[in-house]
Amino acid sequence: MSIDLEIASQAQLKAIGDIAASVGLRTDDIIPFGHDKAKIPLSVLDAADADRGRLILVTAMSPTPAGEGKTTTSIGLADAINEVARLDSWPEVGGKRPAVLALREPSLGPVFGMKGGAAGGGHAQVLPMEDINLHFTGDFAAIALANNLAAAMLDNHMHHGNELDIDPRRITIRRVVDLNDRALRAAAIGLGGYNGGVPREDAFDIVVASEVMAVFCLATSLDDLKERLGRIVLARTRAKEPVTVADIGAAGAMAALLRNALAPNLVQTIEHTPAFVHGGPFANIAHGCNSVLATTAAMTYGQWAVTEAGFGADLGAEKFLDIKARAAGIWPSATVIVATVRALKYHGGVAKDELQEENVEALRAGLPNLRRHLENLQQVFGIPAVVSINRFPSDTDAEVAALIDALAADGVTAVEARHWAEGGAGAVDLARAVLAAAEEAADPAPQYTYPLEASLAEKIEAVATRIYRAGGVEFSPAVQRKLAQFTDEGYGELPVCIAKTQYSFSTDGTLRGAPEGHTLAVRDVRLSAGAGFVVAICGDIMTMPGLPKKPAALTIDVDDDGRITGLF
Amino acid sequence: MSIDLEIASQAQLKAIGDIAASVGLRTDDIIPFGHDKAKIPLSVLDAADADRGRLILVTAMSPTPAGEGKTTTSIGLADAINEVARLDSWPEVGGKRPAVLALREPSLGPVFGMKGGAAGGGHAQVLPMEDINLHFTGDFAAIALANNLAAAMLDNHMHHGNELDIDPRRITIRRVVDLNDRALRAAAIGLGGYNGGVPREDAFDIVVASEVMAVFCLATSLDDLKERLGRIVLARTRAKEPVTVADIGAAGAMAALLRNALAPNLVQTIEHTPAFVHGGPFANIAHGCNSVLATTAAMTYGQWAVTEAGFGADLGAEKFLDIKARAAGIWPSATVIVATVRALKYHGGVAKDELQEENVEALRAGLPNLRRHLENLQQVFGIPAVVSINRFPSDTDAEVAALIDALAADGVTAVEARHWAEGGAGAVDLARAVLAAAEEAADPAPQYTYPLEASLAEKIEAVATRIYRAGGVEFSPAVQRKLAQFTDEGYGELPVCIAKTQYSFSTDGTLRGAPEGHTLAVRDVRLSAGAGFVVAICGDIMTMPGLPKKPAALTIDVDDDGRITGLF
Repeated sequence: MSIDLEIASQAQLKAIGDIAASVGLRTDDIIPFGHDKAKIPLSVLDAADADRGRLILVTAMSPTPAGEGKTTTSIGLADAINEVARLDSWPEVGGKRPAVLALREPSLGPVFGMKGGAAGGGHAQVLPMEDINLHFTGDFAAIALANNLAAAMLDNHMHHGNELDIDPRRITIRRVVDLNDRALRAAAIGLGGYNGGVPREDAFDIVVASEVMAVFCLATSLDDLKERLGRIVLARTRAKEPVTVADIGAAGAMAALLRNALAPNLVQTIEHTPAFVHGGPFANIAHGCNSVLATTAAMTYGQWAVTEAGFGADLGAEKFLDIKARAAGIWPSATVIVATVRALKYHGGVAKDELQEENVEALRAGLPNLRRHLENLQQVFGIPAVVSINRFPSDTDAEVAALIDALAADGVTAVEARHWAEGGAGAVDLARAVLAAAEEAADPAPQYTYPLEASLAEKIEAVATRIYRAGGVEFSPAVQRKLAQFTDEGYGELPVCIAKTQYSFSTDGTLRGAPEGHTLAVRDVRLSAGAGFVVAICGDIMTMPGLPKKPAALTIDVDDDGRITGLF
Repeated sequence: MSIDLEIASQAQLKAIGDIAASVGLRTDDIIPFGHDKAKIPLSVLDAADADRGRLILVTAMSPTPAGEGKTTTSIGLADAINEVARLDSWPEVGGKRPAVLALREPSLGPVFGMKGGAAGGGHAQVLPMEDINLHFTGDFAAIALANNLAAAMLDNHMHHGNELDIDPRRITIRRVVDLNDRALRAAAIGLGGYNGGVPREDAFDIVVASEVMAVFCLATSLDDLKERLGRIVLARTRAKEPVTVADIGAAGAMAALLRNALAPNLVQTIEHTPAFVHGGPFANIAHGCNSVLATTAAMTYGQWAVTEAGFGADLGAEKFLDIKARAAGIWPSATVIVATVRALKYHGGVAKDELQEENVEALRAGLPNLRRHLENLQQVFGIPAVVSINRFPSDTDAEVAALIDALAADGVTAVEARHWAEGGAGAVDLARAVLAAAEEAADPAPQYTYPLEASLAEKIEAVATRIYRAGGVEFSPAVQRKLAQFTDEGYGELPVCIAKTQYSFSTDGTLRGAPEGHTLAVRDVRLSAGAGFVVAICGDIMTMPGLPKKPAALTIDVDDDGRITGLF
């Protein structure tokens, strides 16, 4: 059995009603899913105390392919704040728990593919990890159905006379499945003659790459969800006019499919910290954060809400702040940048298979990557930042000390966090440092990378130069035409969502460290009118991953008593 | 608002814990899904009283395209038995309710397409009908994911070297979606060059047409499920050897995805009769019944279990008895054949748009259809049968009287049932007639249409001649070769599942009434090794329906408070 699964199976879960009661929710307020999961109805969230707690955003330096442990750190930090509250006997504040979590739901793609589950690790996990990792409360299935209903209704419209004059060569909606399925990356559908519909090219995406997922995660109510769904542009007419979900009459049925899913899911950490685990869009072609409803629910029921954003801070945190936080009217009081000795050595030039060996010099050589993320958060966005060192067994004391010393010289607090091995108690120092940083800064006013009034090209340039430190941006003539078209159509004031590799500040994933003066070449731009952003594609973006030769699915099993094995 | 939705929204649901308690289940025994739905864990079912109640199977004469109301009659009959028990003060028997229901889960295909929901109608409904009709507890989504994982792993295997030497021209697994999506009936996938996988033809089915659905509905435990999944033949090698789910290593992960779904769902009727609503395979290429676990759960917790089988008795009841009941070791004590004045006139030759007009002569002319279904059930299967006349507003008293009189002359009890308008009280006469028929017959021993030891061809011939009254069966040379191959491979002792039109005893849907001497032409045969039957395809079988020009999805909506409209 994997270590994560073993630790999870030894944990004593509380009844979800008890977790709900710990934030003042009655049994009738929650929608139970078994005895250890629940949804909180939007009506209950709406009626709750509007005096929200403060927000802590967990992000990371540019990651190695293995990931640096943002989710685990988020869980450990929330558990640790609750531990600090206990140690320091915090006074009761309006029925709120000291800390509540908001996380993304795992996609089945990585669970069955390579990465494994996404419910934390070691002693910093959300539970029941088997359910959370294995399609949970069915939210992603509902999102996939809603997306695929729109696609089916679009093709059906073309089959039955095509009154809207949809151009089959200009369809942008793709069907989705919540699996890694390479063979669906490019397909021809509508084959087989008249009864097979209108032939056309198609491609399937993984559900987390869909605009419906992004819409779901930005919606603040069922009405808002339905309006956003209605605005999604599915295709263009032969005259190039947009054809929306509303035009084909699918918004109501899609929202009906999503009405239960939209209520955030409540679970618990191993240490019984309430955790809202809800939504999970990609951090490249979408904004990469859990749902606005989950984050604001965590702020409603916690004095501190701990949340995370996908990939490194240049992608995840930037989108969290410029897209999600701006749309939702929230702003973090502090950020945590997760760094690892391993990732620093990687950015200092060490090869992947030599990361286990001590190399203080390479670690120092990798520091510019971390420093730039710190500068971006502190100076561009004006938010205090603390570095959490997610310690791995191969890290040496000399390496960790060198890192802490180097950052101290910059005036940055870096704390070694041992939540993986020790749970919340192992991250108490981190929690105290984060809380101190937040207290010192009071509540910073939002500072965005760009104003919405800037042109779409200016907004892309602002992110490229201010966050990525590119020398400039290249827009091909086709991209320029599309940006002009989106602006003409009234989408010019949307924020921008840049899709690029997470491994580098540049668009070249092998360019480690802190490159500058590079060029951001925008290959394509896409409109996500429902989610409310324009995506700038820079480099190869995979919206349908493939399975590896030996996928994790081969090892996953269940016995006759329902016990899962092989999940990690 | 539709009448069904209006009646449903006025019903006062009991908490699902109270419904569970009414059959002796404690709160900890059930897995709640909200306050009005639950799953009963297999461990609880295993531990329950093995002294099962008796079974009543609801089936129908050959239907008109509108359907004759089997689900509604099943619900009304179960409510009526509970009403009879109350009126007659039945003594308490081992904590069992007098009647418990077992029904299929609705597919989203018809919900968004043409037929609408499938949770009964009028005052005979299972509730909450909006949830039950709109992906419910997520079972079908889990089944779709499990099926699609197998397909993805198969294509992935071919992409990564194809060690098993799978022939891309001989792949039988199809990806599925729980929607009507015509454009996916025929597709080419694996396009786009090397990174898009191996190019091949593909086709998508609706999830209810998948073998995984059939397997799910026949499984008796998680181990049995996993073994059946492992036996599913996905493809053939270039040497024509079968490639199974077990061969590609997907059975464990598929079972892990299905482990929560396999527990039957418990809901209630408007009159608070416990109802297990679980599974729902097609009645043409699969066996068309709710899950074995749901049916046996209803027998565990009810003195009488009422269940249904899809389409007319020649398809649904035959498969229920020869496939499901044989596999599960159960047998009904009585059957109810649902007949309508409308369907009798249709089989008597009246055109569809003239069915509203009184026509006693045509009704009498249609009787041979109903009589043959009665003979089949009584003589081939040896089960007592009662006719339930599902009365529609346009039916005249003269028509109903003529029907009752004609059947009385045959010695058959026919009862007018008014459960749609009156709930269980409207079907008390039907309940008393069914209970009397069952009491009279004691418990009939199983009598199948054919023994499993007969050859596959003989088994198909037995159904054709004994049930359909065909003059003979035509097997093309290709079909003969495939039957020989299946027999060589050890599948010769499986039962057969005949896929043909439900509108006629013959394979010609326009041949109404009681045709005889026709020829059953078997176009193709397919192996469902996991479900455990060989499918004989006779005629055009649609495994992926299309949406009509004005699909029901256009009218379905949800307001900001989560209230659904337009569902019928």
